[in-house]
Amino acid sequence: MFSSSSFNLPNLRSTPPASIISEPNPKTLIPTTISLRAKPESPYEPDPEPQVRKFKGSPQLKRWSRARAIRSGRKLDRPGKRSQVMELDRQVQLRQSAELEPSSEAGADGYDDVAATVSKSIYMVSDGTGWTAEHSVNAALGQFEHCLVDRGCPVHTHLFSGIDDVEPLMEIVKQAAKEGAMVVYTLADPSMAEAAKQACKLWGLPSTDILGPITEAIASHLGVSPSGLPRGAPGRNFPLSDEYFRRIEAIEFTIKQDDGALPQNLNKADIVLAGVSRTGKTPLSIYLAQKGYKVANVPIVMGVEMPKTLFQVDPEKVFGLTINPVVLQTIRRARAKSLGFSKEVRSNYSEMDYVRGELEFAGRIFAQNPVWPVIEVTGKAIEETAAVILRLYQDRKNRCSMPRISKRY
Amino acid sequence: MFSSSSFNLPNLRSTPPASIISEPNPKTLIPTTISLRAKPESPYEPDPEPQVRKFKGSPQLKRWSRARAIRSGRKLDRPGKRSQVMELDRQVQLRQSAELEPSSEAGADGYDDVAATVSKSIYMVSDGTGWTAEHSVNAALGQFEHCLVDRGCPVHTHLFSGIDDVEPLMEIVKQAAKEGAMVVYTLADPSMAEAAKQACKLWGLPSTDILGPITEAIASHLGVSPSGLPRGAPGRNFPLSDEYFRRIEAIEFTIKQDDGALPQNLNKADIVLAGVSRTGKTPLSIYLAQKGYKVANVPIVMGVEMPKTLFQVDPEKVFGLTINPVVLQTIRRARAKSLGFSKEVRSNYSEMDYVRGELEFAGRIFAQNPVWPVIEVTGKAIEETAAVILRLYQDRKNRCSMPRISKRY
Repeated sequence: MFSSSSFNLPNLRSTPPASIISEPNPKTLIPTTISLRAKPESPYEPDPEPQVRKFKGSPQLKRWSRARAIRSGRKLDRPGKRSQVMELDRQVQLRQSAELEPSSEAGADGYDDVAATVSKSIYMVSDGTGWTAEHSVNAALGQFEHCLVDRGCPVHTHLFSGIDDVEPLMEIVKQAAKEGAMVVYTLADPSMAEAAKQACKLWGLPSTDILGPITEAIASHLGVSPSGLPRGAPGRNFPLSDEYFRRIEAIEFTIKQDDGALPQNLNKADIVLAGVSRTGKTPLSIYLAQKGYKVANVPIVMGVEMPKTLFQVDPEKVFGLTINPVVLQTIRRARAKSLGFSKEVRSNYSEMDYVRGELEFAGRIFAQNPVWPVIEVTGKAIEETAAVILRLYQDRKNRCSMPRISKRY
Repeated sequence: MFSSSSFNLPNLRSTPPASIISEPNPKTLIPTTISLRAKPESPYEPDPEPQVRKFKGSPQLKRWSRARAIRSGRKLDRPGKRSQVMELDRQVQLRQSAELEPSSEAGADGYDDVAATVSKSIYMVSDGTGWTAEHSVNAALGQFEHCLVDRGCPVHTHLFSGIDDVEPLMEIVKQAAKEGAMVVYTLADPSMAEAAKQACKLWGLPSTDILGPITEAIASHLGVSPSGLPRGAPGRNFPLSDEYFRRIEAIEFTIKQDDGALPQNLNKADIVLAGVSRTGKTPLSIYLAQKGYKVANVPIVMGVEMPKTLFQVDPEKVFGLTINPVVLQTIRRARAKSLGFSKEVRSNYSEMDYVRGELEFAGRIFAQNPVWPVIEVTGKAIEETAAVILRLYQDRKNRCSMPRISKRY
């Protein structure tokens, strides 16, 4: 399970320092405490018939009209084929989980950190980092925000990364069956992906192959077969590319420039952010730096003169940030409390008159620099503000008719 | 197209500062320079028949055995149905692009930044940030690393974010048709997703719905309908959650602790990284901070005593980083050059004897602290090292039998 990760644990084996760079023992960390009572015959024997995706059956248009009708989070009473399939699945699942754990009552799963009776689980299995699965599931869960935590349908996700062998894969699927979890996987090796699919089918678990369809479509588009190798597999190229160095340099630059440090270096930045305290300049800068952009951020403080260099750099790379004053006050109060500001400092920082005044002060600076786009960050996640900035940045840089971010691979 | 992003451009309209927080004009940035010669009748009229995904037709097992056979990047001579479909697609595509741009030769697309004749394009269309599409496509392209840039099949990706109206969506699909691009989309609104699918079908473009299948599967699993609203849509909750504050605090903490600053605060960190210069401590710390972990990193320099607090904190949160000396020397030489080190400093930093000596010095410290896992970063992307660290971190924290990262939504 850990064979792609090349580390060792000195506390588990008293390895001398010389062996630090040696090959890892893939078995070192695989615990054998999961006892499996029922072992189906060849659970990952491929089915010779081509598989049809379970939820593809119902016509999408019907689904969509249903979705439009019931968009406010109330439970579905799905008619027809799908609910039959689900009911069947659930029966198979209950039966199988009883077989797996005949002594347990109500499907208790032995994990005290999972409340299987009230929340649903999603198991994410990856042969690499698992970040693609996590990212996609997180984005998909954004479609259920109206019903998640404290609103009737909490979801637990469990990410299993570096799963590059069938044995741990099967243990995870069985564990998912015990918990009645859905399984989502990104497995580059076709035989691993097939094993996951077949095992989920056997145990009656809903499953989704995240990367399969897109990889398949790209293969057809390029006319080239996928490698079938996980990202972290030995023998893959070391990422000492220009891109790699550029990202690291961007991160280091951005950290050094944080919060108005070194204003003499603003001209070296790709993007300059200006805004009052607590408009999210720092996390936004860091997010953009991860994407390879050198970012400097300059705080706007009422009555404090801005660095002259800010007005000397290319105004097309400067972005102003603004925010709703009521929301800003809430954030500043939380901040002042966590930093233990004295009452006097606090009133200068988070009282409404001061907050409004400072935002107006910022607004005047923005008005004097009409080339700077001013971005309203209220209600936006960091990723959303970053998307707006990069769309504008790329648009201005490339002067293309449709704002877009282009990359070459 | 920009109605979810709430910004305005002072240089395009002389807006007074008071209107900065007002509603945006969604048309402000939509350029009308794309001229469409052929306008098909209702390109996004839904087809009453349920659609079968184009590339699902060929049995997956055949595909996999083919993939295993031809894994080294040579062009496919795909037999049977699929290549027929592709050929058909290409013909339809060529014909249609000729209809679109009757005056152009060889399908020139009017963009000088795209060399459509040598590289294939992938258009990514999102009603939100587009990061999910970008992330998934990037991960899928990892399966074609053997053939990308300079190896015969370069790929251009173009990300169009914030597309929440049918009109710009259709312009993008038509542009994709002109370029012979593949279209990948994440569109929460079912009618938008259907429009994209139908338009791609009409123009003969391969297309993939990235979030649809997983959202569908989660809907069935939870028994709740998706909202059909993009993430950035007005009326969505402001993400002033605990999670939001935790991430920001983690990033700010991590920046302050970078490169051994404030060793007295090591006990407040969730994760402490120790390693010699250029083992990637800073970018790794920042990546982990983005995920909500407070990270401190402590440099190991030959002959310099480590801060005492490093040995006083919980050793289960300390991780050592090591690297192959030859690779480290390469990285250090590049670094020394870019920083303009003098020759004398350079030899102390990037000469092989010194590099080996420093790594051995680090190895002795690691050996004296056997609880610290030592992670080999050679050949790993930052994301991969982060995955290994978090797997171990979560494993130690939760003492579960199968190392995993669990979250509640």
